[in-house]
Amino acid sequence: MVDAAITPPSDVDTLAAGGEHCSAHEATGHHGYAGDAQALQNRLRRIEGQVRGIQRLIDEDTYCIDVLTQVSAVKSALDRVAMLLLEDHLSHCVVGAAEAAATSGDATEVNEKVREAAVAIERLVKS
Amino acid sequence: MVDAAITPPSDVDTLAAGGEHCSAHEATGHHGYAGDAQALQNRLRRIEGQVRGIQRLIDEDTYCIDVLTQVSAVKSALDRVAMLLLEDHLSHCVVGAAEAAATSGDATEVNEKVREAAVAIERLVKS
Amino acid sequence: MVDAAITPPSDVDTLAAGGEHCSAHEATGHHGYAGDAQALQNRLRRIEGQVRGIQRLIDEDTYCIDVLTQVSAVKSALDRVAMLLLEDHLSHCVVGAAEAAATSGDATEVNEKVREAAVAIERLVKS
Amino acid sequence: MVDAAITPPSDVDTLAAGGEHCSAHEATGHHGYAGDAQALQNRLRRIEGQVRGIQRLIDEDTYCIDVLTQVSAVKSALDRVAMLLLEDHLSHCVVGAAEAAATSGDATEVNEKVREAAVAIERLVKS
Repeated sequence: MVDAAITPPSDVDTLAAGGEHCSAHEATGHHGYAGDAQALQNRLRRIEGQVRGIQRLIDEDTYCIDVLTQVSAVKSALDRVAMLLLEDHLSHCVVGAAEAAATSGDATEVNEKVREAAVAIERLVKS
Repeated sequence: MVDAAITPPSDVDTLAAGGEHCSAHEATGHHGYAGDAQALQNRLRRIEGQVRGIQRLIDEDTYCIDVLTQVSAVKSALDRVAMLLLEDHLSHCVVGAAEAAATSGDATEVNEKVREAAVAIERLVKS
Repeated sequence: MVDAAITPPSDVDTLAAGGEHCSAHEATGHHGYAGDAQALQNRLRRIEGQVRGIQRLIDEDTYCIDVLTQVSAVKSALDRVAMLLLEDHLSHCVVGAAEAAATSGDATEVNEKVREAAVAIERLVKS
Repeated sequence: MVDAAITPPSDVDTLAAGGEHCSAHEATGHHGYAGDAQALQNRLRRIEGQVRGIQRLIDEDTYCIDVLTQVSAVKSALDRVAMLLLEDHLSHCVVGAAEAAATSGDATEVNEKVREAAVAIERLVKS
């Protein structure tokens, strides 16, 4: 039985279906993080292992402070993943949209990309 | 291949071996979170699933902002786990040591427990 | 003109009026931080100066990234103040209530103190 | 007497002297936040008042948990200031540099602006 009520609103499967794209990605046929996708996956697999390690710690009745140390370590590792994603978003989506705007004279997309980035950063700062 | 260099210093396996205990736990034969262990494990299993979901999002070239939203959601879910562990530590280890000190007149352990809790909280605030 | 809408719900003046006390404080006639009150005030005065420094930076049209660095520095300085207050709360109010409970057999106050501390820590982690 | 040891490395006066500028700002003769400078100053003045309010709370021996609530409120108010500065940096400095790069073909400055923003965001997430 899973206590679904506690989890922040997020639906991985729906998101995975597709959604938004930025023109810089469409031009190249892949997302900005495509180049670093392997590095991100390595980090995420290691994080997944750390989360399983915490489950084991609890099974083994480990001292709560030691478990807390691991939880903080996983949060920091997730921050590194977030920073890689964010820097990628800035250098590909935001910069790509700004370059497009320089040619087209239409700043709508670049403004939207900046707004999205700001919202994502705020969410990260609060999490 | 795992990029070990990026991970904060933490060694789950060593910790699991044992380490410190607090007298309140020794008295009852289990840790404070024993009662809530199942709820913690449910949360951690769900977090593990969320981390795997993020890996899938990256495989599927999902828009970076949507991936970031998931990373923030996992961080918030870890904060809930940390808060449960911390409240448990306070109500069992710290309070237990304080009660023991009231009888024995020796405040050494309770001071140490408070110090440990403060260090863990600071680490959490920074992560 | 002050943009009141942006500020989190907080009313310094109402709080200052009095409110809750813990029995450990009542016994000694002062709060746990009384001993460290001067150190806290020194830190807060320095933080106040840092906030004024940021106002000056904006007046002088300083590069935004340099202003951001100062904002992060003030947040970290506030975290130090928060940690001092929290450690004080744990070693005086929580421990004091636990010792009282050891004598009286009534755990109502200590449970309440732990709950309050947990709520304050969560708020801090999110801010 | 100021306890200098506790403060993160930062030197408001040196920074105020000048330092880096981005070409978008040089073109217009002011920083991106110039338009919002008044709103930022209002927020900062209110934050300065909140910090003074916390000093008063400590003078009046206010219950530590109530003081902690105020500290968290100030941290959240600083986050709002940081987000305004950051969004400004993205929409002016980063976007400006990207537009310049679209014309000149030289991506050096835009890459540097993105890097700086990423470092500032990471510092904010950790503070």
